[in-house]
Amino acid sequence: MNFASDNAYGALPEVWSALSAADHGAEMAYGNDSITQGLTARFSDLFERQVTVFPVLTGTAANALALACLTPSFGAILCHRDSHIMTSECGAPEFFSGAKLIGLEGKDGKITPEAIAEGLAGLDGSVHSVQPRAVSLSQASEWGTVYKPSELAAISEAVHAKGLKLHMDGARFANAMAYLNCSPADATWRAGVDVLCFGATKAGALAAEAVVFFDKGLAGEFGFRRKRGGHLASKMRFVSAQLEAMLKNDLWRRSAAQANGVAGRIAKALEQVPGIEMAAPVETNMVFARMSVGKAAKLRAGGAIFHDWIPAQNGKLVARIATAFATPEEHVAKFIALAKDN
Amino acid sequence: MNFASDNAYGALPEVWSALSAADHGAEMAYGNDSITQGLTARFSDLFERQVTVFPVLTGTAANALALACLTPSFGAILCHRDSHIMTSECGAPEFFSGAKLIGLEGKDGKITPEAIAEGLAGLDGSVHSVQPRAVSLSQASEWGTVYKPSELAAISEAVHAKGLKLHMDGARFANAMAYLNCSPADATWRAGVDVLCFGATKAGALAAEAVVFFDKGLAGEFGFRRKRGGHLASKMRFVSAQLEAMLKNDLWRRSAAQANGVAGRIAKALEQVPGIEMAAPVETNMVFARMSVGKAAKLRAGGAIFHDWIPAQNGKLVARIATAFATPEEHVAKFIALAKDN
Amino acid sequence: MNFASDNAYGALPEVWSALSAADHGAEMAYGNDSITQGLTARFSDLFERQVTVFPVLTGTAANALALACLTPSFGAILCHRDSHIMTSECGAPEFFSGAKLIGLEGKDGKITPEAIAEGLAGLDGSVHSVQPRAVSLSQASEWGTVYKPSELAAISEAVHAKGLKLHMDGARFANAMAYLNCSPADATWRAGVDVLCFGATKAGALAAEAVVFFDKGLAGEFGFRRKRGGHLASKMRFVSAQLEAMLKNDLWRRSAAQANGVAGRIAKALEQVPGIEMAAPVETNMVFARMSVGKAAKLRAGGAIFHDWIPAQNGKLVARIATAFATPEEHVAKFIALAKDN
Amino acid sequence: MNFASDNAYGALPEVWSALSAADHGAEMAYGNDSITQGLTARFSDLFERQVTVFPVLTGTAANALALACLTPSFGAILCHRDSHIMTSECGAPEFFSGAKLIGLEGKDGKITPEAIAEGLAGLDGSVHSVQPRAVSLSQASEWGTVYKPSELAAISEAVHAKGLKLHMDGARFANAMAYLNCSPADATWRAGVDVLCFGATKAGALAAEAVVFFDKGLAGEFGFRRKRGGHLASKMRFVSAQLEAMLKNDLWRRSAAQANGVAGRIAKALEQVPGIEMAAPVETNMVFARMSVGKAAKLRAGGAIFHDWIPAQNGKLVARIATAFATPEEHVAKFIALAKDN
Repeated sequence: MNFASDNAYGALPEVWSALSAADHGAEMAYGNDSITQGLTARFSDLFERQVTVFPVLTGTAANALALACLTPSFGAILCHRDSHIMTSECGAPEFFSGAKLIGLEGKDGKITPEAIAEGLAGLDGSVHSVQPRAVSLSQASEWGTVYKPSELAAISEAVHAKGLKLHMDGARFANAMAYLNCSPADATWRAGVDVLCFGATKAGALAAEAVVFFDKGLAGEFGFRRKRGGHLASKMRFVSAQLEAMLKNDLWRRSAAQANGVAGRIAKALEQVPGIEMAAPVETNMVFARMSVGKAAKLRAGGAIFHDWIPAQNGKLVARIATAFATPEEHVAKFIALAKDN
Repeated sequence: MNFASDNAYGALPEVWSALSAADHGAEMAYGNDSITQGLTARFSDLFERQVTVFPVLTGTAANALALACLTPSFGAILCHRDSHIMTSECGAPEFFSGAKLIGLEGKDGKITPEAIAEGLAGLDGSVHSVQPRAVSLSQASEWGTVYKPSELAAISEAVHAKGLKLHMDGARFANAMAYLNCSPADATWRAGVDVLCFGATKAGALAAEAVVFFDKGLAGEFGFRRKRGGHLASKMRFVSAQLEAMLKNDLWRRSAAQANGVAGRIAKALEQVPGIEMAAPVETNMVFARMSVGKAAKLRAGGAIFHDWIPAQNGKLVARIATAFATPEEHVAKFIALAKDN
Repeated sequence: MNFASDNAYGALPEVWSALSAADHGAEMAYGNDSITQGLTARFSDLFERQVTVFPVLTGTAANALALACLTPSFGAILCHRDSHIMTSECGAPEFFSGAKLIGLEGKDGKITPEAIAEGLAGLDGSVHSVQPRAVSLSQASEWGTVYKPSELAAISEAVHAKGLKLHMDGARFANAMAYLNCSPADATWRAGVDVLCFGATKAGALAAEAVVFFDKGLAGEFGFRRKRGGHLASKMRFVSAQLEAMLKNDLWRRSAAQANGVAGRIAKALEQVPGIEMAAPVETNMVFARMSVGKAAKLRAGGAIFHDWIPAQNGKLVARIATAFATPEEHVAKFIALAKDN
Repeated sequence: MNFASDNAYGALPEVWSALSAADHGAEMAYGNDSITQGLTARFSDLFERQVTVFPVLTGTAANALALACLTPSFGAILCHRDSHIMTSECGAPEFFSGAKLIGLEGKDGKITPEAIAEGLAGLDGSVHSVQPRAVSLSQASEWGTVYKPSELAAISEAVHAKGLKLHMDGARFANAMAYLNCSPADATWRAGVDVLCFGATKAGALAAEAVVFFDKGLAGEFGFRRKRGGHLASKMRFVSAQLEAMLKNDLWRRSAAQANGVAGRIAKALEQVPGIEMAAPVETNMVFARMSVGKAAKLRAGGAIFHDWIPAQNGKLVARIATAFATPEEHVAKFIALAKDN
């Protein structure tokens, strides 16, 4: 019963088929293959406009490389204090960009125009301080919550008014889109996002992420930075084939919807358990449940694997229950039963 | 007829099978899975001693991360002036390590103790100059040639006498081992190699390289640097499964032997063509053939794809003909026929 | 009436004399001169133990280079959120070290063992997060307050218990020591400080800071990093001569005592002005006075130059009044008169 | 008898006077003082056009910061293989810029359009290699030789034709200008130089260099990079005052002419000594004399201090005899006598 991460499972059958089909003889290496070349059209279709796309192998690479295109080394990037780029990438964004990350407060993992304004206070263009150049947000957030297009528009307005760029860490973009009832375009560039890291791995690919620039002018250095970072796969067609498979027939969003649904059912069940309460709204594939230390231990004794998102304080902790496209139905049932059992 | 790169082909059937088998349900992410955990034993068996192993996704990442563990930012790394790390990684080794690369001369792509001594001249410990800390060589070299264990031993003696460490870029280690009649141990740590980047991608994996530390004391920072570089795959088991498959039953070496054999036959045929001569001994899977511009054009007109390794001068160029585990027999025959035809 | 910075004034007569005396003919460049060589003995005397000393030209260089010796690129440095290294060096510590700065809360600009413990929470050795390696504090703090030896001891105990190193930004170490009634040894290494950036510029030198390592083992890379950072002055003897002059007859501490005294008198006077209150205890040479926007404007109209430390909110701001060794008595009198005048 | 470096001597009387005069009370720190503000006009007058000027404290800082403004991190800088930035700055240019330095061959320390063309071969815009963005030359060169305006024009034409920028390391610009019979404008921007590091320290300042941008568009990041590098002196007026003093009445060039003259006389005398010959034309303040190991030992036994520029081979070495503005006449006479004596 692995609820530790949405990376715990392998790949979707469609991904395996695409990989197999891509092994059809020789192709030019390093992205000069037909599948990779075709990605621009695939993603431009998806986003209803011309975009510039770069496949990479990991989400950390996607974020760090994309951010490095938005800021000079003496720059600053504002982001939620709990964001993945802030806490969980061992300083990769700083390594690739040189910039400083400035953590913002925000309920349920989401930043706001007000938090951005506060974070910018004091960063006034003086040579003594780093220069803010970008804001990054995670969609869905690290607390599983989703920015609505109107929220994104308000943020991007605040961001662009200061001459900054808006980056979206979309490691769970699929889960967010499965939650939102709108087009990918509405939830990205139409709401002011400048560059999106489109995650496919968590949604069911093996290892494939796409950095999508809505503003081509920002993408000029990406190719060099990707190679310099060791992120230009020689047999790139197999990365691109995963992305193509995920986009086909909306697989990415359907797979995420499946994971979201499972999380929703778990949340619903847990909410009815006395002593358990949700620490954040459950909008995607992660349930943050505040429970007693004893309850968590009991769940683990029963075979459940999950992370303590907030360590125990006064006998209570917040557990993160992550679901994925392949979380087995019997695990869900067993987990709920364990939770309900006294 | 793609002879452009040994990365032009996909993956071996055994690799596909292993990938499929690895998709067996949930596993812990980021390398905390059973397949990745088992790699230490696999590689320790292969090298007849305890080693420390880290899987990564690209050869550039393997080299850059390994080298960063050998040198401080003010260090220097000596390597052949034609080496991949010097010419073809967009400065990745410098980016990850901070160190300066110092190019050495050397026949057929190979460095020597004499070239190392010359490269070290003037680097005397003064704070005014970068400090040499490592020597890197490629096995096989970028010219397809192979260091014999005795050559390696002479080099490592020179390297260690100066307190430096010896790194081996083994993107084509399999091809080198298929050429050498000795054990992997004899061609690495017994000859003084401190860290090896063991390449599997060119030999028939999708995207899998292993950084093998023979001296555990050098490996302490690798895990952090790998994550910080965005090279810690979340679904790492699928990288590790490729490596496991390649090691099993000596697949890595057999596959490389196949590629070497094809190159050997091409070389033999080309040598008999008037006006074509070998620019370097053909020991692995690459043929460097000096030929007229017209001959090269004719080969290309006939459908052959290959790189000009040395651009045309006085009507002659050096073509690099790279073979791989899956180069079709009919392409070989057709290429040879084209070359022979006047 | 310049109260903007303790850098507003030039140099002490004794510093000028020493500079002049140092221009006595030829000397070896780059620190291989007799004055620089003698600094080790001067500082070892001052600190009552063997120390390793490196002169540099700016405080930012001193801090950034010292910190770079304490942490790998994937490290983290904990410091007060208002500290100079966090807010006012344009990311220099990150540039030189690669490490991430983690801001701690703390009253009056001072960090505590509790704040350190909180800052370390979640930084558990996992490769996903940066690794804490050092704690930095400013003595005196950016709010002009001073750590007592007992406070330092408690902090260093917490720091060393976690295997971290303790760095002291002593740009205003002289002012702190003028306030404390103890020896430099008691306020540094005896209280657990591992490396001190001993500031002389603010105390009356032209441009001279000394990085003092109490643990020689930490100093091995400093010389290389200093040169690589462009901070090895060719005519180094003139930097060292300033330091020598400052140490002689306790000039550094006497000069700082003078500045502290002036600040104390200003604070005493301001406290008696209705509507003005101290925003922090005045222990050194800086007065942080909360006053109305109108009062600040009036002071400025009268010729006073100072920074708004906290911008106006609800009609009140916090002004920083900085004094220096050479602040003229008549400016003090005039400033006080202006402040008292309604 | 110190002929080790032109940094062996202190400062000119006019520099001391200017420093003293600059200590006239309070000024705004960090370059916001009247002397620093006036530098733009001073240097614009000197160069007969509007320039953008930044004072820094060391030549290494000047070069590294200037170059960092010309190239992205994945860039390449071409320079002579013996240049100071290549051999003697512990990798500072790489540290500040991220770029790779590519060494060119060239007689007497000078690069040529042909060498640049050769260095650019293979750097074709592919993501696999670093991207050339700048060429750097030293005026005077590390071999004491001087580029004529016509030579500079030919180089800059080659540089600009490839879209690169031309940087001039002018640590000994004064010596070069004392040799050339032309205006500073003719030897810099009129000949295509984009940015000049104007050295004053070797010519008789304490520690002062000016980075002079002829193209303001390249200077936008300099201020931030200077601060981030720890090179923004708080009491900047004292750096600027040195530069002002050096420019006044052409002091910089007169002082260098004095040093050049001394070197010329030494060279003339040495040339008449059997067994000694010049290893490069003596055009500025450095004499490169090939002599027997025994002769060099004898000179040293007599009290002469100098560097072996090329270590002993077959009983001969090349000694570098550097003169400065303050080299005493009696040392010159004694040195010549020693050299002549058998």
